[in-house]
Amino acid sequence: MGSLSANFVDVLIVGAGPAGLALANWFHKSKIRVLLVDKRAHPTLCGQAEGLKSTTVEIFESFGIGSQIWAEAHRLEEIAIWGHSEGVHGIRREQVMQDKVQELGKPRECMLQQSRCEHHMAHNLLQSKNVTLLRNIRPSSINIDSKDMLTSEAYPVSVQLSRMEIGSEDHQINVGTIRAKYVVGCDGARSWMRKALNVKLEGDLTDSVFGVMDFIPKTNFPDIRKVCYLRASNGTILLVPRSNREVRMYIPVESGSELSDPKDITLDIILEAARKIISPYNLDIATCSWWSAYRVGQRVGDHFTTHDSRAFLAGDAVHTHSPKAGQGMNTSVQDVNNLGWKLRLVLEGKADPCILDTYESERRPVAQDLIAFDRGYLKLFSASSNSFDDEFAKASRFTTGMSIRYSLSNIVQMPRGLGDLGPSLLKLDLVPGKRLADVQLVLQVDGTTTRIHQRLHASGQFRILVFAGDISQPPLFDRLRKVGTQLADDSYPLGDLIKGSDPAQVEVLLIHCADRDKVELLSLPEVFRPWNEEYGYDYWRVFADVESAHEGHGRAYERLEVDRLKGRMVIVRPDGYIGVVADVDDVESARMYFDRFMRVVV
Amino acid sequence: MGSLSANFVDVLIVGAGPAGLALANWFHKSKIRVLLVDKRAHPTLCGQAEGLKSTTVEIFESFGIGSQIWAEAHRLEEIAIWGHSEGVHGIRREQVMQDKVQELGKPRECMLQQSRCEHHMAHNLLQSKNVTLLRNIRPSSINIDSKDMLTSEAYPVSVQLSRMEIGSEDHQINVGTIRAKYVVGCDGARSWMRKALNVKLEGDLTDSVFGVMDFIPKTNFPDIRKVCYLRASNGTILLVPRSNREVRMYIPVESGSELSDPKDITLDIILEAARKIISPYNLDIATCSWWSAYRVGQRVGDHFTTHDSRAFLAGDAVHTHSPKAGQGMNTSVQDVNNLGWKLRLVLEGKADPCILDTYESERRPVAQDLIAFDRGYLKLFSASSNSFDDEFAKASRFTTGMSIRYSLSNIVQMPRGLGDLGPSLLKLDLVPGKRLADVQLVLQVDGTTTRIHQRLHASGQFRILVFAGDISQPPLFDRLRKVGTQLADDSYPLGDLIKGSDPAQVEVLLIHCADRDKVELLSLPEVFRPWNEEYGYDYWRVFADVESAHEGHGRAYERLEVDRLKGRMVIVRPDGYIGVVADVDDVESARMYFDRFMRVVV
Repeated sequence: MGSLSANFVDVLIVGAGPAGLALANWFHKSKIRVLLVDKRAHPTLCGQAEGLKSTTVEIFESFGIGSQIWAEAHRLEEIAIWGHSEGVHGIRREQVMQDKVQELGKPRECMLQQSRCEHHMAHNLLQSKNVTLLRNIRPSSINIDSKDMLTSEAYPVSVQLSRMEIGSEDHQINVGTIRAKYVVGCDGARSWMRKALNVKLEGDLTDSVFGVMDFIPKTNFPDIRKVCYLRASNGTILLVPRSNREVRMYIPVESGSELSDPKDITLDIILEAARKIISPYNLDIATCSWWSAYRVGQRVGDHFTTHDSRAFLAGDAVHTHSPKAGQGMNTSVQDVNNLGWKLRLVLEGKADPCILDTYESERRPVAQDLIAFDRGYLKLFSASSNSFDDEFAKASRFTTGMSIRYSLSNIVQMPRGLGDLGPSLLKLDLVPGKRLADVQLVLQVDGTTTRIHQRLHASGQFRILVFAGDISQPPLFDRLRKVGTQLADDSYPLGDLIKGSDPAQVEVLLIHCADRDKVELLSLPEVFRPWNEEYGYDYWRVFADVESAHEGHGRAYERLEVDRLKGRMVIVRPDGYIGVVADVDDVESARMYFDRFMRVVV
Repeated sequence: MGSLSANFVDVLIVGAGPAGLALANWFHKSKIRVLLVDKRAHPTLCGQAEGLKSTTVEIFESFGIGSQIWAEAHRLEEIAIWGHSEGVHGIRREQVMQDKVQELGKPRECMLQQSRCEHHMAHNLLQSKNVTLLRNIRPSSINIDSKDMLTSEAYPVSVQLSRMEIGSEDHQINVGTIRAKYVVGCDGARSWMRKALNVKLEGDLTDSVFGVMDFIPKTNFPDIRKVCYLRASNGTILLVPRSNREVRMYIPVESGSELSDPKDITLDIILEAARKIISPYNLDIATCSWWSAYRVGQRVGDHFTTHDSRAFLAGDAVHTHSPKAGQGMNTSVQDVNNLGWKLRLVLEGKADPCILDTYESERRPVAQDLIAFDRGYLKLFSASSNSFDDEFAKASRFTTGMSIRYSLSNIVQMPRGLGDLGPSLLKLDLVPGKRLADVQLVLQVDGTTTRIHQRLHASGQFRILVFAGDISQPPLFDRLRKVGTQLADDSYPLGDLIKGSDPAQVEVLLIHCADRDKVELLSLPEVFRPWNEEYGYDYWRVFADVESAHEGHGRAYERLEVDRLKGRMVIVRPDGYIGVVADVDDVESARMYFDRFMRVVV
């Protein structure tokens, strides 16, 4: 990371938690100057968020840190449901089910504590001279100059920064004023930025107080190493195993009584509440590495952006909910995954600033859906519930994130001649506004496997995926040749976007389903294996949907519902969401898509 | 790593290449004081060895660094064979085959440059206060006192250490004398230690001179991203793709001519030789990160240990051969994987020093086989070869390492009542002296998958694997209960070895093939889920050979040829090799196995 050499930056990020660090990773190795400040003097060490959904792991993969995170994460494969029993035992095991959504084709979630996720994101930024992270620094005042906001060269945001004197709790020392083009508040549930921007939270605190503890248990409860919903007559524990022999438990403690202020809760009170629920099994703590007590708030900001899209809020700063569904860190990272590429492209002059408006229009509904879901989910916890299984299965699917679909806009367009497609929810099919499903493919040139999101690095590039079908058939090969020629030959803007370099603004990838040995890479149209005077050919743009040597068959065409003869063209946004879907040879649709907001940078 | 606080260490390791660093990793987090010295001032940065066979990755897994190495490694899936063509093209593609040995059930090899392997091993040692690594330090004289060698408390090895004055090539400065119990020379092909110990290399230099270069190619050769054997009329290139757009090429240059001294070879000469072979395809170098020229020596030390097993040699210091089969770094790491645990157990008082003699008796035949293989392999490269395919398939199997079988000794014992089993070579079956095949299992307690070698950490522990069969059948469950009781109740030494802690000298693992939901972990005999007052139950000792949630079925019983009714007991050495095989309820065989060399430490 670089040091702060001037008082002017492109982006000021307030808060270096998961949201702030993930946003900074979107500017990794770019020329955009980023200052990331955090009021805490030290990084997170323990506790806090932990569950990572597969989509979030895909985002880490796009940052280049997915394999480290996946290698370190604790895997979860099973969920045990325990219910109230009238017999001699207070609770009994009702069922054990796999923690699996078949459609995903890979694990749905894993566990890695927030501190390690933050570590990997911060470590990745060490290679970025353009990003500076300062700790023990907080904003003390902010001013956004409305006169300046219309010129892209201006720095309308002025923020005064201060640091705490060591050993003091309230003596702030002014360290100077920073000018920025954009400011993003990622400063958590008690966000200073939210208040400064006058954004209001809509919704309420619930009357439920929960305790949470990370500990090594000494117990004879048999499912202590499984994800476990323990629904006794006197409350429900959510148990999640962690690495290093530890488990995490979320436990309801007395509500509505004199103990309802979380500050009055102690570890002993939490343990005692847990013991009552898990009885007749015994429960002791060998060591406890972290614990906390909290009252759940279910609230969403009335705005996610202010000042004509010069100021943004992301993560817990604009939505709070129960941590039980494991959505906190995930939604935060996904917020900035939506915002990061938009800021980057606008700052690089590659896209019209109008795309910044889509941050609120795309992410606020997701937060609202999440709060609505969370209300039902919390009730599920307290209900005695005949419908628990159904509700639970629905919840698993919701939290997987496959039901998210961004609405139509400049960057989510309907195919020509088609009306609205209606909700497709859990299907993996290709619908504008949905996330591209993470299918496995085989690289044409060397037979290695990759999942598509591993290939889609967070570089700010759009991708045109050409599903060309079985190109060992001469008519389909001919069609591909025409598509390749048209993509490269298009006059403004498509050809320029594709043929630029370092990197091209739009990358063209080919996904065929022919036998690999019937396809010669260097006989394909050049746009799929362009020559670079410095590096030679680009060998990494052509993929086959075939059986791999060691990892089975990805069945991408089948899963994405692409016809092996008709094929399909799909434009994928830099954040992995689908921009538009068209016929495989409808190059005009691609041209029209980019024409709405992209600017060619020579 | 700690600093050198005294002139006395348990083990002095000379050379911090792959062998030296891997050996040091065997003492990770132990109480054994290790000094590792290397004459180079800096770690390896580029070039050198690269191929990692699956067995070597398993060893890295046992050190706890396998997932990082695997994540970073470049995958290889295909091998293209090109032959001489009489037509207008000088060479033509004969076939493309998968780089796969079906029996392995996982990829056979991957590529990661030596510098990164060394980095991960050195980084792992940073957590070990008992291991010190000093660079720019070399031995200048050695003395081993034969009078001292019989007492285990003595330090018979005296080594004078020196460092090079910076900027000077021959001015050594004496830095002191180190006393050690054992010394290991891992100092490469030009080993100082080998000469000092008066070990002779048997065998010869060949008359072949090769060039090797790591570079980004600019070429129209179509298989540039595959492993490729290019056999033209004027020589054979071995091409191996690397990460970062680079490839490595091994190229024969003029031999028997005035250029036969490798020192006279230049990058231009190597490139020119490569161009002649790859013609009519063109070949240019975009950037070259490393190149070298060498004459292949095929030699083995007449001894691997001297001075009554107080001094050892490992890796290139005692065997040299062509780098083409990618065996150099692999054999070096495997040498010290054999030696490391023996030194550790002897130094911890847990095993009789007699086991140290097996280092030479086990590893020297492996090196001799490797040289014999290498002679044939080099010829294969120059031959016009009708039998190329057969020979090549045989070679792939040899280099996978599955044909290694250590001879009978105190630590490799035949089952009672059985004669010699004869060679089983590539079968995965359970034979004393062979490496345990790396089968996938499902953890009983939480349904997560693991491969067995990921579970067998390099802790110096032996493991008794109890393949108990389908224990949902009452007679088999009864049998298991008896086995569990006998293992725990055995009088000296077995029960003591098993019940000791932190960690136990022998760990008992259960591998059943019943449906997981018919097995309750806490109803199994205690030896399979022991209680620890500090940590509660050990939940990580019981595995099932069943379908996993996301990674298929490991078919361990079938692949290892274990009968689902009869079961099997297998004792696995700390290095992952099989010590003895017995009937599942033959606890007496286990007792007899350990009685030959193990010492109980209270």
